[in-house]
Amino acid sequence: MKERLSKQLAFIVEIDKLKQIFRQSRLIGVDRNENDAEHSWHLAVMAMLLAEYVGKVDVLKVIKMVLIHDLVEIGAGDTFCYDEAANRDKRERELKAAEELFGLLPADQAKEIRELWDEFEAMHTLEARFAACLDRLEPLLLNYHTQGHTWQRPGITSAKVYARCEVLKDTAPALWEYVQELIESAINRGFLVR
Amino acid sequence: MKERLSKQLAFIVEIDKLKQIFRQSRLIGVDRNENDAEHSWHLAVMAMLLAEYVGKVDVLKVIKMVLIHDLVEIGAGDTFCYDEAANRDKRERELKAAEELFGLLPADQAKEIRELWDEFEAMHTLEARFAACLDRLEPLLLNYHTQGHTWQRPGITSAKVYARCEVLKDTAPALWEYVQELIESAINRGFLVR
Ligand SMILES: [Ca+2]
Repeated sequence: MKERLSKQLAFIVEIDKLKQIFRQSRLIGVDRNENDAEHSWHLAVMAMLLAEYVGKVDVLKVIKMVLIHDLVEIGAGDTFCYDEAANRDKRERELKAAEELFGLLPADQAKEIRELWDEFEAMHTLEARFAACLDRLEPLLLNYHTQGHTWQRPGITSAKVYARCEVLKDTAPALWEYVQELIESAINRGFLVR
Repeated sequence: MKERLSKQLAFIVEIDKLKQIFRQSRLIGVDRNENDAEHSWHLAVMAMLLAEYVGKVDVLKVIKMVLIHDLVEIGAGDTFCYDEAANRDKRERELKAAEELFGLLPADQAKEIRELWDEFEAMHTLEARFAACLDRLEPLLLNYHTQGHTWQRPGITSAKVYARCEVLKDTAPALWEYVQELIESAINRGFLVR
């Protein structure tokens, strides 16, 4: 087998592990947390359907970004967004994981995936910001439809959830309007502490 | 909330169920079968990485296709590719499921998703054929790395696996060459009956 294909397949086999990285969100209607592969798939379909809310955006790039955005968690694990201690060394752990994992690929593809991930992390481009919006909106939907599963933890308040969703305000105003309605409804229904 | 967004979000919430549709393939290194959301995510990343093996292909369309190709299984369930009895009414069950599920979306998006699914199913275009190649290759990799988990069932032979992978021969010759090596190696290692 050609060395290039061999590298690509080694990477494809390695990333099967993303299906075993569990997140904080609960699936709807079943007692199991979501994993990163399921989450990434969900964001990619959402990117197809909701792109109209962010104006002129490169949908292919957004989809690629969300498909690969959590791969580093194979090496670094899932870091709960509201866990301040764990977030302190998150960047360092993920950078190391990126080197190792993307390094399995042929150099040109390692570079492409790394650049997509860097762009996602930096949140400067419209594509990265839209990807971030989806990455906020999906767990919000899961939480709302599981009686606020993750929101029931000590210390989680609506202020923290609002702050986490801030990126939607400017990037996707129509979705932001919906997010506000959803958070207020969650508070009223006792899923989330005001 | 606008009616259009409301329909899109209802669909996005409904497809969470794809994470509960379990396939025949085993994940690598863990005692659990793969679900359709994980499978669809894996194919989408493979489409990004392996497109070079099929010449000039619309990668965005391929990715969209693999992301949505199994959605009908939310209504119709997973049909094991080697189960002849179950495959007899598969088409009918999936058509009914497609009407119901895609019908949740605004008409233009329902049409887009339906056309993508129809194109995937028909396997006439290069995009659909490449998507089919990925849909064969991924379970092959999982089976190879789980000592032939699915191949150990009564009645599964290398001839059936070769027949299932036929689409790779003309569509992606370099991948087909690899698939042949993998199947022969699986036979030699006792993962698959000659
Ligand atoms: Ca299928």
